Amino acid sequence: MVNSNERVLARLRLHRGFPMHVIDPFKVPVAEAVEKAVAVRALGHPALIVASTDYDRFEERMPGYLRALKEAVDIPLILHFPPRRGAGFPMVAGADAVMFPALLGSEDDYFIWKSYLETLADLPRRGIAPDRCPELLLAAALTFGPDPICYDLLGTMPVDQQPGRLEFLAEVISLLRFDVVYLFSRYAAVAPETCRFLRDRLRPEQLIFVGGGIQTSSQINVHRDAGADFVVFAGALEHPDWRASLERLCPAPADLPGPARQIKT
Amino acid sequence: MVNSNERVLARLRLHRGFPMHVIDPFKVPVAEAVEKAVAVRALGHPALIVASTDYDRFEERMPGYLRALKEAVDIPLILHFPPRRGAGFPMVAGADAVMFPALLGSEDDYFIWKSYLETLADLPRRGIAPDRCPELLLAAALTFGPDPICYDLLGTMPVDQQPGRLEFLAEVISLLRFDVVYLFSRYAAVAPETCRFLRDRLRPEQLIFVGGGIQTSSQINVHRDAGADFVVFAGALEHPDWRASLERLCPAPADLPGPARQIKT
Repeated sequence: MVNSNERVLARLRLHRGFPMHVIDPFKVPVAEAVEKAVAVRALGHPALIVASTDYDRFEERMPGYLRALKEAVDIPLILHFPPRRGAGFPMVAGADAVMFPALLGSEDDYFIWKSYLETLADLPRRGIAPDRCPELLLAAALTFGPDPICYDLLGTMPVDQQPGRLEFLAEVISLLRFDVVYLFSRYAAVAPETCRFLRDRLRPEQLIFVGGGIQTSSQINVHRDAGADFVVFAGALEHPDWRASLERLCPAPADLPGPARQIKT
Repeated sequence: MVNSNERVLARLRLHRGFPMHVIDPFKVPVAEAVEKAVAVRALGHPALIVASTDYDRFEERMPGYLRALKEAVDIPLILHFPPRRGAGFPMVAGADAVMFPALLGSEDDYFIWKSYLETLADLPRRGIAPDRCPELLLAAALTFGPDPICYDLLGTMPVDQQPGRLEFLAEVISLLRFDVVYLFSRYAAVAPETCRFLRDRLRPEQLIFVGGGIQTSSQINVHRDAGADFVVFAGALEHPDWRASLERLCPAPADLPGPARQIKT
């Protein structure tokens, strides 16, 4: 049976309030990815996301890439890729969990949630036994601001950040007991008010991730203070001087003000 | 891939406005079930539902039962059973489709919809190849009126038939593109206003089934006139003189008043 234990989810629930890094395996060379994984592990990050909106030759590139990361760090590796019709969500052995985005703002029911069904029915063809399947993180995904890349790939329309629509979506997410709510904005920004509004209405066990355009520690703090459990950054480290950026973005735990200091890793 | 064609769904969409019979294979002897199947086929019913709220030794009883029905009639046989945690929805070879109820009024997320995931992941263990899986009819199920049987089995609370809650549920059902909305009341009744309210808000391709306590042709007509695509009856034929009841419930097509006469079978 899939998801008979929820180890990664349990770990995330115990380590709320951390930033989290996303590595794009189709942009970042594997040696650099390993160094970054070691660096965020040392900062106490509870997991590492391996993700890309687009991907090519997944089956070729990913097994070795994941293996190298697994050998370097003991924190969970979470895949986060959009599904493709006819194949579902891509997966690879060695991943501890897979984010399954349900794109509630899509015009296409496949991307809204029916990709879940296809992926699960397709596991045997891919040689994945249900009890060896990475843990599924069922993630309602809301995208804000115009985003032609997501529209072309996934039919996603920007979600209106006004209370009426958010109230409805919060009620849907609560009813369907998604594990995660992933708030994303590629070009605009997730409003901290959106984060707070959802935090006040979702079930306490539901985790809020915020990502897209996170470049500064003050952005991280604003979202964390507004109720985000994890603030996710990717592009901020996609340059040679990434160590300096990481230091600015995520001060070492002893320097952190407030509650994050008390969270045990 | 599951559901790569939707033959049964397409057929149902072409034959709206018919009553539909439910046979409980754990109550009705197979010889009687075969006679009933032949009788409703002759009346032009577009499908037959094989269903029970409770079931025991499913794997023992069902294959022979379904085979006998398949040999007698050429209309689709639709299974409709609640899922069980650890096993998912029961299925049997020879079924053309399986109703997958998503119990939006349940307190338990397994019955709300996560049973879908378990069932699909569990197909290989049951020896069902994804491309041999019966067609799935994704069915939002709303139950009305107190129903301790459903509560004990499935955690379902009665759905409030007031506009506020129904408005929300209609929006959810429309967003998630369920194929079917199944309105059921074991002891009370589905209000025709509920049916009309939902018909006005759902997508035109979404099919409304109404069932529970249907004993007369005027009940069937009231719901059909309120927008139900299929009015389902079960217990009305669970007695020796069922042929007389069937005649009263479903007059032969030529005697039907109104639009149903034009619908080709």
